[in-house]
Amino acid sequence: MARYSFLDDYSEGAHPKVVEALYSTNLSQQKPYGDDEYSVLAKEYIRDATGVPASAIHLVASGTLANIIAIANCLRPHEAVIAPDMGHIVVREAGAIEATGHKLIIVPHKDGKLTVEGICAALDKNAHFPHMAKPRLVYLSNATELGTVYSKTELAAISRLCRERGLLLFLDGARLAAALAADRTDSLTLRDVAELTDIFWIGGTKVGALMGEAIVIGNSLLASDFAFHVKQRGGLLAKGRVLGVQFLELFRSGLFLDLATHANRMAALLSSGITGAGYEMAAVTETNQVFPLLPDGLVAKLEESYAFYVWEKVEGSRAVIRLVTSWATEREQVEAFIAVVRNWR
Amino acid sequence: MARYSFLDDYSEGAHPKVVEALYSTNLSQQKPYGDDEYSVLAKEYIRDATGVPASAIHLVASGTLANIIAIANCLRPHEAVIAPDMGHIVVREAGAIEATGHKLIIVPHKDGKLTVEGICAALDKNAHFPHMAKPRLVYLSNATELGTVYSKTELAAISRLCRERGLLLFLDGARLAAALAADRTDSLTLRDVAELTDIFWIGGTKVGALMGEAIVIGNSLLASDFAFHVKQRGGLLAKGRVLGVQFLELFRSGLFLDLATHANRMAALLSSGITGAGYEMAAVTETNQVFPLLPDGLVAKLEESYAFYVWEKVEGSRAVIRLVTSWATEREQVEAFIAVVRNWR
Amino acid sequence: MARYSFLDDYSEGAHPKVVEALYSTNLSQQKPYGDDEYSVLAKEYIRDATGVPASAIHLVASGTLANIIAIANCLRPHEAVIAPDMGHIVVREAGAIEATGHKLIIVPHKDGKLTVEGICAALDKNAHFPHMAKPRLVYLSNATELGTVYSKTELAAISRLCRERGLLLFLDGARLAAALAADRTDSLTLRDVAELTDIFWIGGTKVGALMGEAIVIGNSLLASDFAFHVKQRGGLLAKGRVLGVQFLELFRSGLFLDLATHANRMAALLSSGITGAGYEMAAVTETNQVFPLLPDGLVAKLEESYAFYVWEKVEGSRAVIRLVTSWATEREQVEAFIAVVRNWR
Amino acid sequence: MARYSFLDDYSEGAHPKVVEALYSTNLSQQKPYGDDEYSVLAKEYIRDATGVPASAIHLVASGTLANIIAIANCLRPHEAVIAPDMGHIVVREAGAIEATGHKLIIVPHKDGKLTVEGICAALDKNAHFPHMAKPRLVYLSNATELGTVYSKTELAAISRLCRERGLLLFLDGARLAAALAADRTDSLTLRDVAELTDIFWIGGTKVGALMGEAIVIGNSLLASDFAFHVKQRGGLLAKGRVLGVQFLELFRSGLFLDLATHANRMAALLSSGITGAGYEMAAVTETNQVFPLLPDGLVAKLEESYAFYVWEKVEGSRAVIRLVTSWATEREQVEAFIAVVRNWR
Repeated sequence: MARYSFLDDYSEGAHPKVVEALYSTNLSQQKPYGDDEYSVLAKEYIRDATGVPASAIHLVASGTLANIIAIANCLRPHEAVIAPDMGHIVVREAGAIEATGHKLIIVPHKDGKLTVEGICAALDKNAHFPHMAKPRLVYLSNATELGTVYSKTELAAISRLCRERGLLLFLDGARLAAALAADRTDSLTLRDVAELTDIFWIGGTKVGALMGEAIVIGNSLLASDFAFHVKQRGGLLAKGRVLGVQFLELFRSGLFLDLATHANRMAALLSSGITGAGYEMAAVTETNQVFPLLPDGLVAKLEESYAFYVWEKVEGSRAVIRLVTSWATEREQVEAFIAVVRNWR
Repeated sequence: MARYSFLDDYSEGAHPKVVEALYSTNLSQQKPYGDDEYSVLAKEYIRDATGVPASAIHLVASGTLANIIAIANCLRPHEAVIAPDMGHIVVREAGAIEATGHKLIIVPHKDGKLTVEGICAALDKNAHFPHMAKPRLVYLSNATELGTVYSKTELAAISRLCRERGLLLFLDGARLAAALAADRTDSLTLRDVAELTDIFWIGGTKVGALMGEAIVIGNSLLASDFAFHVKQRGGLLAKGRVLGVQFLELFRSGLFLDLATHANRMAALLSSGITGAGYEMAAVTETNQVFPLLPDGLVAKLEESYAFYVWEKVEGSRAVIRLVTSWATEREQVEAFIAVVRNWR
Repeated sequence: MARYSFLDDYSEGAHPKVVEALYSTNLSQQKPYGDDEYSVLAKEYIRDATGVPASAIHLVASGTLANIIAIANCLRPHEAVIAPDMGHIVVREAGAIEATGHKLIIVPHKDGKLTVEGICAALDKNAHFPHMAKPRLVYLSNATELGTVYSKTELAAISRLCRERGLLLFLDGARLAAALAADRTDSLTLRDVAELTDIFWIGGTKVGALMGEAIVIGNSLLASDFAFHVKQRGGLLAKGRVLGVQFLELFRSGLFLDLATHANRMAALLSSGITGAGYEMAAVTETNQVFPLLPDGLVAKLEESYAFYVWEKVEGSRAVIRLVTSWATEREQVEAFIAVVRNWR
Repeated sequence: MARYSFLDDYSEGAHPKVVEALYSTNLSQQKPYGDDEYSVLAKEYIRDATGVPASAIHLVASGTLANIIAIANCLRPHEAVIAPDMGHIVVREAGAIEATGHKLIIVPHKDGKLTVEGICAALDKNAHFPHMAKPRLVYLSNATELGTVYSKTELAAISRLCRERGLLLFLDGARLAAALAADRTDSLTLRDVAELTDIFWIGGTKVGALMGEAIVIGNSLLASDFAFHVKQRGGLLAKGRVLGVQFLELFRSGLFLDLATHANRMAALLSSGITGAGYEMAAVTETNQVFPLLPDGLVAKLEESYAFYVWEKVEGSRAVIRLVTSWATEREQVEAFIAVVRNWR
């Protein structure tokens, strides 16, 4: 019998409403390359939600494509990207950004996040003109690879620094929905993100779409000719409608945040259930990723019924594991998981 | 009232069976990044169909991505691509191949096709070591941009030349289904294509998928580390299942060729109907593209009810138009179109 | 016994004055990376000669480097270069420009030159947004690969077109000295070149330097951060003085034009001597390249004593050969060459 | 009055013998692009000195060019470079390697050097196929940026690891002469370097040439088509003789090591003089770089007569300064410098 998966937030296909929308629109004839009526309408909804009527929006099929296209569009060859050492472009994209010709300047993360201090130190260390690539764009993810989120205060401080120092701010939003749905004070809204960054993208893949990320360009200087980059990097789908229909479904009635809220709640339930059973967390649970520290015996027991990553071995025969929830996570499975934890020993 | 579109072969979504397969598999939990059971099975079917059990297969979301990834995988920085002047990578991909660092050496086409003579001339003209980039890979499309197809004899001759001269042969199969379904003597099969080339791809987008192209690498020297390139160029979908499910549906019971056969028949019907009404063709109709030469008045009349491209203005108040059919083209629309042609004047 | 070479204009080292300047300045301690006093002064002289006091100047070691750096500095990734089919970057730089990511759009030459009509046709054919790379920079050489030169009227017309159409104009001046020294009406001055282009370079290698090309950037928008590109492409010499000393020697008292004038005169002498003996020219002799059409027997006779390229075989047992003169070409050798031609048969 | 410079080892031009060789060979006609007789002979001498008769050798004008060309030649797009955090390609080449498309994987240095442990840790952390770029080439400099040198044991251990793990070993020899001339036990010879690496380069610029670095490729698999890369990156000089003449002079009678020995001795003299006066060194003096730790007052005093870099401010009103010696450093200046140190306070 197959184990229930907490491996990631892309184990299932799309939310049923999304697949139904693909079905119901399937046979209408549409213009190609993103000029279909669904894409046009989806972009209107996203533009409204960001509060920047003039922003340019482009839909692409993967997060790595979104990062490649956005960064290649923004930079001249001698310009470098400042990124946290855990950043997806640093450690999980097979050198995609360097393949477009740009250096990554690595900054140690704090709770998965960039800090003003870290960026300033990187600027100081990379100022030897013209021997060092010129720092020009700051890359960060929200939620981070650790599932943590930037507060409005934190992102505003980084944004202010970027504007003072002539840096562009780019936010990778693979899990932006989870960040926006996080239940905390000083939290960011989509409008805040649009206002504080120059360019960012909204992940669809991890919040209920089959695939699809929406790149939002608020800084109009960066918007000109953007479509060329989408095409040149292979991101322009002939049937762009596929992305349009999905984002339309996610944004036309709030499904986007609803699905993230569900995922976050399931994570919170896991987290409180596990801590309630007396175990510690290796990282605070703010979105849909949970990092409990468990005895090896319990880990082995859980592996009989559940799939998840063992994140890190820890002394004392223990391990940090990673549990990821999604729009599709079933409460019954979460409760059963917690029961195994509670009943162990 | 909307006009019926003969603009291209990607005006509709996917064949209903393909969308249904997405729906029915939607909620099963699967491994990410193309290791899902549908992708694994789809690749088995494709491998069987090509007759090369050892070939490596990778599914990506767009034709430009397939071209970028395949070519970047095959070449060292100083190596160049020989391509026909009408080639998609030459004139319709926004410099995507050059963006990976490679020169395109352009050869005049004959009926949309490369010839042995053309390739030899290019080799002669690009032999000044080390001042000229080294020709290393021959790129061609089948069916071509003009809808014509390579005969088995033609492709075999090019293949032989390539092997003699140390060149790799790469076939862009955006419309490979249409070529394979072409009703002509000396025709190519999928097995022939696999045998005669080093690497090629099978287009899904234009034959009934929402998106998706299958890169097939028969030359094992080119297969090693290929997955890195897919990832690095943004082609590795988290939910790779989406591509797997669609190719599985296209290949498990012959849908792939059936849909192309329908498209070709509709084109043949258009072609014979128009020539039957006394008009010439600017190119032979071999697949799903039709290029009639019509009086401007008739073109204007047709534009009232149908969408299509005016390909070229011709003297004598005439124009070549392009009509493209697909798996979704309705016979009634074709017949109504022909009726307009017949009844004009 | 060695044959006397008319193969090219870089068979000897540097003009003796240039080597002497290297010797006499050799032991002074100087700042590295082009901040030495010779480079600073050389740039002043060049700036004066161009009549653009605000222009930025960078010295690099080779023409290919100058082309790579200038073009990479000017373009975003989706932007393409319009170039004549004989252009050095098209056929003699091993794909150097494509290796920086940019497409070359090829235009047929007329007497080695680009024309307004050719550029306009290329713009028309490359206008399909966003499927085609965006034409952004026009590349031309003066003198051309055929030794011909642009008149002031011709370059002004191209310049005007570029400004109207939002194109940058870049002039490869590997043999700019020869062009400026050409003895013809409607001729260009260095000031004209600086005024009509956005960026250009002045070749030193072919006019009496050991090596060295001076990139001159008149368009201030293109000058910012240029030094990064010089460094990134490997063009920043630790002992930048080497280039500075040489350009200082070439420009401080007119040596630059004097040496080119000598080379052109030697070519004119060859040309008139050969036509005087009854033979035709395959191209007009405007600078330091001579393309006589000679019987094969005479070619064989000449090859006994002289080295040169056989450019093209021609029917009737004839051949076009290429003779190149330089600052170092000896009048005695030219006269002896002509004598062989006259005395044949 | 000008201060005497200990800023770097490229403040002067070339060793007088090198300039004289340029002068004496200046007017002979030679083949272009490195096929001149001087380059041919220089390569013979270098080949003899390395003990690898079959090695391929290419001469280029700068260290950054040597690094760009060597690395671009060796790697496929998904392959990454392991380099120490102080590496020249990491912090002083303006993103040159990334501009060729390759990721740098950074390893903390120990005394300026890579270690086997550091490389192994990098391999472990970059093993997530295909999400992480594939480590393929190890880059190190000898002497290092700190002036330290690899022992034969150290380089042999790294070489063994590389061969076991399928990695190429590349040595940047900008200051290889200084390393080879270092007076220590377990020292490397040029033959050892050739045997233990796959590809390396011998710096000329910092040891008495005007410019020039000799890339030596012992691994024959890496040598094929190398000349294309030299051309494509702008490294092929029309008058390649300039580099050939210089390397011939450096290698035909031992000048190469003699000049480095002088530089090292001057550094040793500085080092012992300063420690003899009671001051500490921040790094061991093994080659031609000296890093004394001095009181700010003394630093200010020295700056009146000498130019050098203040490397790092240290608590207690002190600073580490960097003094670099070269073939041109005058013993009198060294002694005068030491006298200032001794006489202070």
